[in-house]
Amino acid sequence: MNPQSLPTAETIAIGTELTIGQVLDTNTAYAAAGLERLGFRVVCTRAVPDDWALMRHAMEEALGRSLVTIVTGGLGPTKDDFTKAVLHEIFGGELVEDARTLRAVEERLRRLGIEMLQSNHDQCLVPSTCEVLHNDFGTAPGMVFRRGEHLLVSLPGVPYEMEGLFRERVTPLLQSLTSGARFHRTVSLYGTPESTLAEELKDWESSLAPVFSLAYLPSPQGIRLRLTGNGVATPEMHQLADLRLAELEKLLGDRIFGHGEEDMPMALARMLRAGGRSLATAESCTAGRLGALLTAEPGASHFYRGGVVAYSDDAKLRLLGLDAQRLAREGAVSQWTAEAMARAVRERLGADYGLATTGLMGPEGDGTDTPVGTLWVAWAGARGVGSRRVTMGNLRRVNLERSAFLALNSLRLFMLGE
Amino acid sequence: MNPQSLPTAETIAIGTELTIGQVLDTNTAYAAAGLERLGFRVVCTRAVPDDWALMRHAMEEALGRSLVTIVTGGLGPTKDDFTKAVLHEIFGGELVEDARTLRAVEERLRRLGIEMLQSNHDQCLVPSTCEVLHNDFGTAPGMVFRRGEHLLVSLPGVPYEMEGLFRERVTPLLQSLTSGARFHRTVSLYGTPESTLAEELKDWESSLAPVFSLAYLPSPQGIRLRLTGNGVATPEMHQLADLRLAELEKLLGDRIFGHGEEDMPMALARMLRAGGRSLATAESCTAGRLGALLTAEPGASHFYRGGVVAYSDDAKLRLLGLDAQRLAREGAVSQWTAEAMARAVRERLGADYGLATTGLMGPEGDGTDTPVGTLWVAWAGARGVGSRRVTMGNLRRVNLERSAFLALNSLRLFMLGE
Repeated sequence: MNPQSLPTAETIAIGTELTIGQVLDTNTAYAAAGLERLGFRVVCTRAVPDDWALMRHAMEEALGRSLVTIVTGGLGPTKDDFTKAVLHEIFGGELVEDARTLRAVEERLRRLGIEMLQSNHDQCLVPSTCEVLHNDFGTAPGMVFRRGEHLLVSLPGVPYEMEGLFRERVTPLLQSLTSGARFHRTVSLYGTPESTLAEELKDWESSLAPVFSLAYLPSPQGIRLRLTGNGVATPEMHQLADLRLAELEKLLGDRIFGHGEEDMPMALARMLRAGGRSLATAESCTAGRLGALLTAEPGASHFYRGGVVAYSDDAKLRLLGLDAQRLAREGAVSQWTAEAMARAVRERLGADYGLATTGLMGPEGDGTDTPVGTLWVAWAGARGVGSRRVTMGNLRRVNLERSAFLALNSLRLFMLGE
Repeated sequence: MNPQSLPTAETIAIGTELTIGQVLDTNTAYAAAGLERLGFRVVCTRAVPDDWALMRHAMEEALGRSLVTIVTGGLGPTKDDFTKAVLHEIFGGELVEDARTLRAVEERLRRLGIEMLQSNHDQCLVPSTCEVLHNDFGTAPGMVFRRGEHLLVSLPGVPYEMEGLFRERVTPLLQSLTSGARFHRTVSLYGTPESTLAEELKDWESSLAPVFSLAYLPSPQGIRLRLTGNGVATPEMHQLADLRLAELEKLLGDRIFGHGEEDMPMALARMLRAGGRSLATAESCTAGRLGALLTAEPGASHFYRGGVVAYSDDAKLRLLGLDAQRLAREGAVSQWTAEAMARAVRERLGADYGLATTGLMGPEGDGTDTPVGTLWVAWAGARGVGSRRVTMGNLRRVNLERSAFLALNSLRLFMLGE
């Protein structure tokens, strides 16, 4: 089966805040991923401003082209939200009060101690031409409209409401429309530039059967390699994909840190939990990002002890007990400081591993000779201490993200070498 | 001047990783914000997969509709990237080597110690029908194509390359095409639900002149209110906007924390720096997010001392010196623990303020009676200690973000009350 023959879907996110770039749109990625997993071919994702004509044009175009259209946003209680009115114009019918939504909204507002307002009442009105998707996560209901075999689903723009409705109401609705014919295998690796990797994988890639395609997805968190099987997802196809993946894993060795949706923090968490090991962090330049990354998923208390955000010299002295004279002599961004931090936090929290960062993230220097973009990462374990110096550019945001992932990967490699 | 009469622009992001929701697209928001600031009306932002026909269709549609089209992505060295080939097909011409790009790529790879490969050579080829935008941030050059008065600009998909090129090369190119006729004023506030706020502002909003429009942008970080002036941006219009904004500020009082692009961490940084005050953090449930938020912008070392990620009880005892028996009696998620953490970190780091969080972020409970979604925030200053309990839902990701912003806002209100 050619990917071109999969049922098509698309998404439309509504809101001037998106088209003027004031708010980052996460709903589109969530809906697109969901549609893809359900076996649709997503041919377009877009955002349009709160503008009647542009909204209507986008909805009509999508309805005419794709089997399924997911519209997110524009269902709030305020004047600038009129997705429902546009849909009412397109699909007709009367505005009717949805009793179940009204009860749920009343109950919800009572629980939060918020007064029921006219705008909340208005949120319970829906065109009679739609099927209501009840929203257990907020006040605005989802709506499903049909034109022939084409479906348009309207969902609220608040991300966790949209995600909840998509997961619990939209997914069952769409499951019957596809044959789940496309599938992906993803591996993630760290430490090789994209062009070098492409050269290294050239022969392997050329030898892939035409039903497979390979995509490179680079970011400061590493490179994800996505192998897509564009055919009927038979057991044989899955087996073949697994075989090719095994070859890829052999080529890339321990540069691969994760599979599927597993990112670097999840991979490290898996390794630490599997070995029954614990970790403590001492962060100067990353200032809490390691802790935040390690605790994003549930279950972090099984391996993460916490640590110190040693952003100032004072914190390095008072919370980690570093030697003041030595710190002054070596400088905050130095191998000695990084290693002393990793060792100290490991000892103070009785953890199996200590992981430390110290660096100059920019854009300005600190008045010393240390170039902007310098990072020292250090790790400490029962077998001793190690460290690594890296030089980056002067883009603060990029440096902060790269530093955190470099540190996590350094610990991963240290653990693999043990 | 009606907003409908502004020159139009749109964006197209290329990549199956976007349309299957595997990667969050930040380029679109960046380009859309830039186009908006330059005085364009952005009528559509979209993403299309790595598919020749869909890419070509989107580009032709945008070229036929908008004065300016920004295309991002699909310029990498690997096989799945073919934006340049599609543009070559649309605009014609010969593929020629751009000498300046070649020199820059050679120099860049030499510096990074990476070997020059055929794929890097290929990146230096451009259609003779384009004008090259030299890329100081990476290897793939930007390209500008023209059809009549319509412009299509192709930029690499790596965010900091795209952003650098947009800022330094695209902005000067587009500046002459608009009259900068639209403008926004944004204020951000915290602590009022959207529907309550809309009710509160109803009279003020109805009294706005028709040239103004108001948008509500809610998120776990608070609500941004955007007042848009849809007319010629004369001094009188700006003055009028300032007057209406002053009224809004009076209505909302100290719920407003920032103006324009200022978010909560930036607002707190401004207040701390203006008062010459310093801050230390003790984070249990937020696990480093406060530190990460406070250090995202340059200059944090002027006010942020660092702190402790007291994720485990051990860390609360060993790094903050909490009383072990009392901690066991009160529990980790309690008023006493939160206040003791805030007090301890303030004292240990000699900071003016201490800010602490402890809570149960979910989705699972911790085996005690404490409900999932419970958060204690505490703050300590020269005038004493305060704390607040909040109950949230059981969505971990939402709880983590809300907890961090609740904590920052609590400190802000405490500082305002001093």
